[in-house]
Amino acid sequence: MAAPVALVQGASRGLGLQFCKHILKNKLPASVIATCRNPEGAAELQGLVGQHPDRMTVLQLDVNREEEIREAAERVKERFGRLDLMVNSSALLHPSGKGETSLRDVSAHGIIATLTTNTMGPLVMAKYFAPLLQKGNGGFGRQPIDKAKQHSGIIVNITAKVGSIGDNGLGGWYSYRMSKAALNMATKNLSIELGRSRPKVLCVSLHPGTLDSDLSRPYHRNVPEGKLFSTERSVGYLMGIVEALDVEKTGKAYSWDGTQLPW
Amino acid sequence: MAAPVALVQGASRGLGLQFCKHILKNKLPASVIATCRNPEGAAELQGLVGQHPDRMTVLQLDVNREEEIREAAERVKERFGRLDLMVNSSALLHPSGKGETSLRDVSAHGIIATLTTNTMGPLVMAKYFAPLLQKGNGGFGRQPIDKAKQHSGIIVNITAKVGSIGDNGLGGWYSYRMSKAALNMATKNLSIELGRSRPKVLCVSLHPGTLDSDLSRPYHRNVPEGKLFSTERSVGYLMGIVEALDVEKTGKAYSWDGTQLPW
Repeated sequence: MAAPVALVQGASRGLGLQFCKHILKNKLPASVIATCRNPEGAAELQGLVGQHPDRMTVLQLDVNREEEIREAAERVKERFGRLDLMVNSSALLHPSGKGETSLRDVSAHGIIATLTTNTMGPLVMAKYFAPLLQKGNGGFGRQPIDKAKQHSGIIVNITAKVGSIGDNGLGGWYSYRMSKAALNMATKNLSIELGRSRPKVLCVSLHPGTLDSDLSRPYHRNVPEGKLFSTERSVGYLMGIVEALDVEKTGKAYSWDGTQLPW
Repeated sequence: MAAPVALVQGASRGLGLQFCKHILKNKLPASVIATCRNPEGAAELQGLVGQHPDRMTVLQLDVNREEEIREAAERVKERFGRLDLMVNSSALLHPSGKGETSLRDVSAHGIIATLTTNTMGPLVMAKYFAPLLQKGNGGFGRQPIDKAKQHSGIIVNITAKVGSIGDNGLGGWYSYRMSKAALNMATKNLSIELGRSRPKVLCVSLHPGTLDSDLSRPYHRNVPEGKLFSTERSVGYLMGIVEALDVEKTGKAYSWDGTQLPW
């Protein structure tokens, strides 16, 4: 079977970059397509390309621009013709860099900017890359023996536990929470529509835990000891979930430890 | 006690207009503030003002414009100084008038336009009107004897059953479903933040049922007989829920028949 092809959106740093590293290291001979807004400024990502010139491709893509997504999909189609995994990783806590602690901090601009990157972006990615995922070889996840239940590709939307409405006990972070709740709806909808094709494309939302990343660093003092971990450890857990996915598990949200999150 | 004051956002027609009619008829001597984008074009609403000149106020307000919301709140503050109920009613199925039946119909523009009106609008309304609701007299809903549990005001966000992620079995209608899932998160967040004040402001999401309205009319052939009803009947049910609300019921989504909807 041909080498699996994975696309990681938002790969210049943090979780996205780590997904690239993980797949390059643990999924030989998979190819990785890394997208980010500004490839020239992504030094660590370029370093990875230097180490794996045959397996890495970097594409410029701003998830807020539908035209750039369409063009990137066109290029992936020309070069690979298919995709086995797509990870939607880029996210914004709030354009100010600080989640709203109360209604006073809420603004029309902040809500829309956050929803655009965190919700619209992943769904428009799915629109243009779903046809390629439908042509995938099912190189990630677990394939049931029953052919009718097999999948050709997987979409992973990185969500967050704070995007669970049912789990929300503290409030605040209006824009971010709403963007991830809406993204979870997109995951559910995608799992339904793409679960009808044969072979299927699976779609899940994954919560990476509270990471040592730019997004959450300002909030670390609130995180209990042992609950904060590196992107490396988190991605190890998340890829473990991805490799165990099958059609029975599509359309749901999972935490890094594999437990299902309430909507 | 002074007459209750209710504000209905998106009152030019459909559900919003019916909320105005219902309160004028059934909640004497309550005042109704009706907001809509184009008051001059809202003939039926103007007729209502003609019938109830002492109890009706119409304010121009486009929910997509934060500045107009701020100005409207300023005018309500000057004239009434408080608010007992706010109903966020206006919503968009999709700017094309047709919900997406598949990923092919999804567009960046359609997602953002829908999220702006259906999600951002109600939350920015809450931002500017929450201070007035905190000064309300609790003229709607049920007041417990325990003063610490009493409320001064209520926010109703009109949601939709298709905005329930857990209930989603059919898929499609990406933008609308996502906008209502995100609105439900806003409801939960608002119930937490405004539940901390004393007296409290309650916030719920209400599903009106499948209505004989402009939004759902193109889809009526799919609705089983007896499941479609008039806005008059729907608002009768919804106001029954509103008048039975207390702090125990805040932060949840209810269907017109009073059953709680899953997130």
